[in-house]
Amino acid sequence: MKVIVIGATGTIGRAIVQAIGNRHEVIPVSFSKSMIRVDIADKTSIAKMFEKTGRVDAVISAAGLARFGPMGSLTDADFALGLQNKLMGQVNLVRLGIDQLTDNGSFTLTSGILSRNPMKGSTAISLVNSALEGFARAAALEMPRGIRINIVSPNWVIDTLKAFNMDPSIGTPVEVVAHAYVQALEGTMNGKVIDAIK
Amino acid sequence: MKVIVIGATGTIGRAIVQAIGNRHEVIPVSFSKSMIRVDIADKTSIAKMFEKTGRVDAVISAAGLARFGPMGSLTDADFALGLQNKLMGQVNLVRLGIDQLTDNGSFTLTSGILSRNPMKGSTAISLVNSALEGFARAAALEMPRGIRINIVSPNWVIDTLKAFNMDPSIGTPVEVVAHAYVQALEGTMNGKVIDAIK
Repeated sequence: MKVIVIGATGTIGRAIVQAIGNRHEVIPVSFSKSMIRVDIADKTSIAKMFEKTGRVDAVISAAGLARFGPMGSLTDADFALGLQNKLMGQVNLVRLGIDQLTDNGSFTLTSGILSRNPMKGSTAISLVNSALEGFARAAALEMPRGIRINIVSPNWVIDTLKAFNMDPSIGTPVEVVAHAYVQALEGTMNGKVIDAIK
Repeated sequence: MKVIVIGATGTIGRAIVQAIGNRHEVIPVSFSKSMIRVDIADKTSIAKMFEKTGRVDAVISAAGLARFGPMGSLTDADFALGLQNKLMGQVNLVRLGIDQLTDNGSFTLTSGILSRNPMKGSTAISLVNSALEGFARAAALEMPRGIRINIVSPNWVIDTLKAFNMDPSIGTPVEVVAHAYVQALEGTMNGKVIDAIK
């Protein structure tokens, strides 16, 4: 399959490329570090990306920004960032991408464990992650031509926890997280939220 | 208790006012039909509402617009309406309302069954309702001074189904839905999504 991986140079994106690169034709896309670039917060940028890639069998998104911080210190702009970037960015990948997918193609988006296991400081991120899960469940009912859409809700990745000086023992190896994307890509599930926890 | 009910003239809001009006001091608020009015999509309007109501013990919101329709026909503006009105409108009631609540006060927001039981045409609404549930769960961890926040996820109300010429047998009586708000207001729960289904 010809598969776009957006966020291909991030922690999770790199692991996805590694997991599927040996048996699929991967087109890596990122905000600044790949041959093909995209700013998912900008619909024009998404449209240009699809012009460059042409028709594909699958779009995997492991991209999107949202702001962590105490609710009282999050600004309107902080909430707007999550809505425009991680949330509507991925929603717009689907809205603009449907016509670019082959029959029986698939979308795999990314939310995150904070959707259902929040922590102090996660209001804006929990909001966005939950929104994405609700969107994916609903969008699955309307996909044409056998197209599927699923969403991976990754636990904290061990490497990310280490980078933030947090306890890595609560984390999940990035290879385990990447495997959830492989399941969504190569399986038959539709409208599923895939918890990538253990 | 002194309780603001936003959306007080809507189907659910009226039933909430009826359910709690005999034992609490209710301040009914709506977009156009109450003495005190608010446009929840406008932060300035929310701030003015709180200036008029003064300090209260609880804020109940049964208000918010989001657009129903096939994903392919929903415009950017349709998605933005849900984000600005039902979603960030209710989030901003909380952000601006915290300082207006007495100690041990409470917020009760409204999502809807489409968050977890989507149907064709519900992508924008499912997104918004799920987002609100994620936000409420996370915000509950950060509430100061014993303040609680919960969210009611109402099933379709029988009267609403009748108004849309849909099968009323799948619906819930509005009094049952209103009771979920009473439980959130008078109980001790925090961070709960209350399914008002039966």
